[in-house]
Amino acid sequence: MVSSPVVNTYPLTNYTFGAKEPKMEKDTSVADRLARMKLNYMKEGMRTSVEGILLVQEHNHPHILLLQIGNTFCKLPGGRLKPGENEIEGLKRKLFSKLAPSSASFQPNWQIGECVATWWRPNFETVMYPYCPPHITKPKVSCIHHIRGQICQLSYHTKTNNFYFQECKKLFIVHLSEREYFAVPKNLKLLAVPLFELYDNVQRYGPVISTIPQQLSRFQFNMVTS
Amino acid sequence: MVSSPVVNTYPLTNYTFGAKEPKMEKDTSVADRLARMKLNYMKEGMRTSVEGILLVQEHNHPHILLLQIGNTFCKLPGGRLKPGENEIEGLKRKLFSKLAPSSASFQPNWQIGECVATWWRPNFETVMYPYCPPHITKPKVSCIHHIRGQICQLSYHTKTNNFYFQECKKLFIVHLSEREYFAVPKNLKLLAVPLFELYDNVQRYGPVISTIPQQLSRFQFNMVTS
Repeated sequence: MVSSPVVNTYPLTNYTFGAKEPKMEKDTSVADRLARMKLNYMKEGMRTSVEGILLVQEHNHPHILLLQIGNTFCKLPGGRLKPGENEIEGLKRKLFSKLAPSSASFQPNWQIGECVATWWRPNFETVMYPYCPPHITKPKVSCIHHIRGQICQLSYHTKTNNFYFQECKKLFIVHLSEREYFAVPKNLKLLAVPLFELYDNVQRYGPVISTIPQQLSRFQFNMVTS
Repeated sequence: MVSSPVVNTYPLTNYTFGAKEPKMEKDTSVADRLARMKLNYMKEGMRTSVEGILLVQEHNHPHILLLQIGNTFCKLPGGRLKPGENEIEGLKRKLFSKLAPSSASFQPNWQIGECVATWWRPNFETVMYPYCPPHITKPKVSCIHHIRGQICQLSYHTKTNNFYFQECKKLFIVHLSEREYFAVPKNLKLLAVPLFELYDNVQRYGPVISTIPQQLSRFQFNMVTS
């Protein structure tokens, strides 16, 4: 049989959670965010962001750590790379900023692991896609033995002249040690959300987070119970 | 930067498609299928099935080969392993049976690659999950800094006594050569369906096939145009 890559998951109760100074969001609305991203794109080109999937276990089931802003919006810890910054180093920097204690004596030992997904945002759309949307001028039928041209044509992007990607987002598994100390900014809540709650729940968690269970399904979870 | 695993995709027009004798489905209804699976489970225990994701490209966009039965139902090529059969060998056997010419002189050289997803069917449900559903008797709140017990309780399975998995399904990438000859059973149609058509289209393709784009998003597609 083919062996699956293994992710060790430790009980939630192994981990200690403290608080630290608030980390305010840069934008107060989606419109503000898109405007700022557009400005940044003009200055620096395609934005690359990196996010971490930190796993713990409860009741023998994997849970993912999510940061909640306000009452409903949840996001993975992570953020935008500086121009030219290495993905792994950039993700560590973002995770430390969001989840590590400020004190130098408690620096965490998080290992950045496998990339599990990449999402692309074309132009200044609010929607991301898990592939490069095709950008061709002459849609053609693309099926064998079966004409499905109408559906294809509807989905093809036809404006090719100004086509580019504004953002590329990569999700990485972060391997936690058996014990860790997290410090959560006071304006955010840290949630451990079970996979079964994320699955098929695009309304609550959005398309990126709600399909993490599928992306993790090829891994074997080693539920350490100590 | 982290390098992504590469999948070479060749133009659809590189491949030749012929027909062969029909391969009839074993069941004529979902109820028949579930009844047969239950009987098999009694005899042989958990069923393991393996399916192949065969990729081609058109318009610089990856397409997946799907078999269509009748007018609407689509499936990946693959099938059930014999008890004790190796996953890779079993998938090759199933792919050859579904897609290869009967003649020994044209045997294809398909390389079974990465496992991209695993799905589990508990008991005799019609639904599959991309994780092992937790089976505990005492649901507990499983969140940090935030009480979300109600949602958790709703989703936990509480019947533990008869809990088991009836089926485990694994999806593998199949690396095609630059040129291949396929022979499609006369009662089936072979479609090359673009990723953007599968994405977010659970109604048409079901939960397993419609999230393949997310599972492939970590790969880099090398679109060979020769």
